[in-house]
Amino acid sequence: MRGFSPRVELLRESPTRKIDALRERLKQERKDIILLSTGQPSIPPPREIREILMGLLAEDSMELYGYTPSQGLYEVRDAISEDLKRLGGIDVPPEQIVLTAGGQGAMFSTLAAILEPGNEVVLIDPTYFGYKPLLDYFGAAVRKVRASLEGGFQPDPEALKSAVSRKTKAVILVTPDNPTGRALREDVAKAVADLARDYDFWVITDEAYKTLIYDGGHVFMYKLAPELTISINTFSKDPAIPGWRLGYVYGPPEAVRKIKLVSEEVVYCPPSFAQRLVAIYLRSDVRMRYIREVVDAYRRRRDVAVQALRQYLPEARFAVPSGSMFIFVDLSAYVESGERFAETLLEKYGVAVVPGAYFSDYYKAAVRISFVAETPERIVEGVRRIAEAVEEGA
Amino acid sequence: MRGFSPRVELLRESPTRKIDALRERLKQERKDIILLSTGQPSIPPPREIREILMGLLAEDSMELYGYTPSQGLYEVRDAISEDLKRLGGIDVPPEQIVLTAGGQGAMFSTLAAILEPGNEVVLIDPTYFGYKPLLDYFGAAVRKVRASLEGGFQPDPEALKSAVSRKTKAVILVTPDNPTGRALREDVAKAVADLARDYDFWVITDEAYKTLIYDGGHVFMYKLAPELTISINTFSKDPAIPGWRLGYVYGPPEAVRKIKLVSEEVVYCPPSFAQRLVAIYLRSDVRMRYIREVVDAYRRRRDVAVQALRQYLPEARFAVPSGSMFIFVDLSAYVESGERFAETLLEKYGVAVVPGAYFSDYYKAAVRISFVAETPERIVEGVRRIAEAVEEGA
Repeated sequence: MRGFSPRVELLRESPTRKIDALRERLKQERKDIILLSTGQPSIPPPREIREILMGLLAEDSMELYGYTPSQGLYEVRDAISEDLKRLGGIDVPPEQIVLTAGGQGAMFSTLAAILEPGNEVVLIDPTYFGYKPLLDYFGAAVRKVRASLEGGFQPDPEALKSAVSRKTKAVILVTPDNPTGRALREDVAKAVADLARDYDFWVITDEAYKTLIYDGGHVFMYKLAPELTISINTFSKDPAIPGWRLGYVYGPPEAVRKIKLVSEEVVYCPPSFAQRLVAIYLRSDVRMRYIREVVDAYRRRRDVAVQALRQYLPEARFAVPSGSMFIFVDLSAYVESGERFAETLLEKYGVAVVPGAYFSDYYKAAVRISFVAETPERIVEGVRRIAEAVEEGA
Repeated sequence: MRGFSPRVELLRESPTRKIDALRERLKQERKDIILLSTGQPSIPPPREIREILMGLLAEDSMELYGYTPSQGLYEVRDAISEDLKRLGGIDVPPEQIVLTAGGQGAMFSTLAAILEPGNEVVLIDPTYFGYKPLLDYFGAAVRKVRASLEGGFQPDPEALKSAVSRKTKAVILVTPDNPTGRALREDVAKAVADLARDYDFWVITDEAYKTLIYDGGHVFMYKLAPELTISINTFSKDPAIPGWRLGYVYGPPEAVRKIKLVSEEVVYCPPSFAQRLVAIYLRSDVRMRYIREVVDAYRRRRDVAVQALRQYLPEARFAVPSGSMFIFVDLSAYVESGERFAETLLEKYGVAVVPGAYFSDYYKAAVRISFVAETPERIVEGVRRIAEAVEEGA
């Protein structure tokens, strides 16, 4: 009897695809769109690294095209191990790293490896919209803990404590956060680590933006609780190869072994050409210089965006992001539904943003603004148009 | 409470990894190994195509690095649509094609989209070892239908008929087959299509080797039963980019839509750099010339391997493969366990093959020999050493 899995009915298209489709239509109508919606970097990988790849493509050998081990090439995992030591002072041997098909592959394989139906998982609200559909798919019961704008979007340890129990399988923390740009404070991270030990749950820490930090530093949860931290990572943001699909997970040996088994079933091995790029990049002199230049460029744009928001939308509420690519702007002084507003804003004013409702059950009048894809001038123009839109009652 | 999903306990490392690990050790001991074990092509993608990619890498734009739609770039799906028309005379619009992270991603997403626990799925024995673990993972009940060497490894329609029922969710057919190289005969394909219509099950046809045909032609199941055929494809064999992880599924619109939803969750989008290569390749003048050259080269090596087997191992039984990269050789006249024999053969005689038991419950004294990775001289030497090993009682 043909038909489909009932579980696949739980899956929906990524919510941003709706905005993408509308944007695509307007592009075909040759409308100029200011892109404040994307999580995609705007500075390509370093030219020096690309030139080495060009040399590899010139060689008449299968070396560049062959399968790699399902865990990923040893040299890449070794380079990541050194990078984690340099960035965070943590010791993660190559055996405790598994390369995946992007951050999404890392999320899927990790959740597949640990979850069974009925498990409780705690999510922060707001948080990245990619986790909820996966948790639904794997049959987990989701509990949300609100993080408030007033508190700089730091999760409240007391609220976390009342949300967890012996039935909690994992708490998922994105830091620096998408959509709020909040970098987890060390005291909050410590409180989470203590709770995780008390109640014996996994801390899944999504560190996609760990090198995009503008103020302060990044807290490596693994440093605080290596035995129960599973970390999700990607090369989509640094060195800016989102379409090439390479990410990684690091964590305790047994967790990594299981995640590798799942990853082998879903993708066989991580994409090899991206692995070559990353191996060269992480080991080159360019690595730290490139990311410093990128961070400086993005910080300038963040400051321009913050300044424009204060000037044009004085009643908008937001926390200045310490990291990531985004500002999460509460427009409740101006609009009721961020979702409806985002559609009108795009259609009538040519500015793309992502509605807050995609990330939060509370901040439904918010929008997420990306400050990395456009020039400073166009960011200011984008914010000016948002102000124009709210004034005209959009 | 930490811990892991019980379903992940059903997963095991790919069986060939054991051979791979032994091979790696011998390589480090600088032993020369004749590689008759791999399913990896030995002729890299056409130079003209690689040169175009080199030009793209020189551009300072994010164009080459960005996310693509989760279904894959339209231009790639359009090129595949034309390719399917040219190769098989079938009309598959780009909307009915979804690009995936390799053939493995195609298999995973397809089975995730259709299966629920308890579904019955029919596998041919022998067949590619990648399906059984996935079926176990998704909780399917597997029924095996034996295909015999005497019958050229064509599945027997009568045996298939007695294995299917109203509870059958799918029959999986690999053609040209791995490990036997059997290309499905048209009358057998028609019988399967009739059965599928009578009992309303999916026919999953794995066409990974569809362009590697040495005698006769490839039967496109979709031509016979478009409404119930889901086809698994890969660019790992043609144009030889296994590590780059790009494959595709085509089938009825609703199946493709569901498979796309799963693929988006496991990988977000298919690897973009591989998509660029394939878009250029499939549309270029090089495409048909390259595959003709590859097929000619592989056919010569197949003939050399067949000749050597007849000369050195007169009591070995096999069916001359019409396609793929492999000969499935029954050594029961010489050895008892193909698995033990393969280990000794590698360790003492420096020849890597894959045991038949990885593909079959019946042909446990068989080995799979690949004829694409080595030169004709080394193929002959490899077969000579197999003969030496059986003579010495390995």
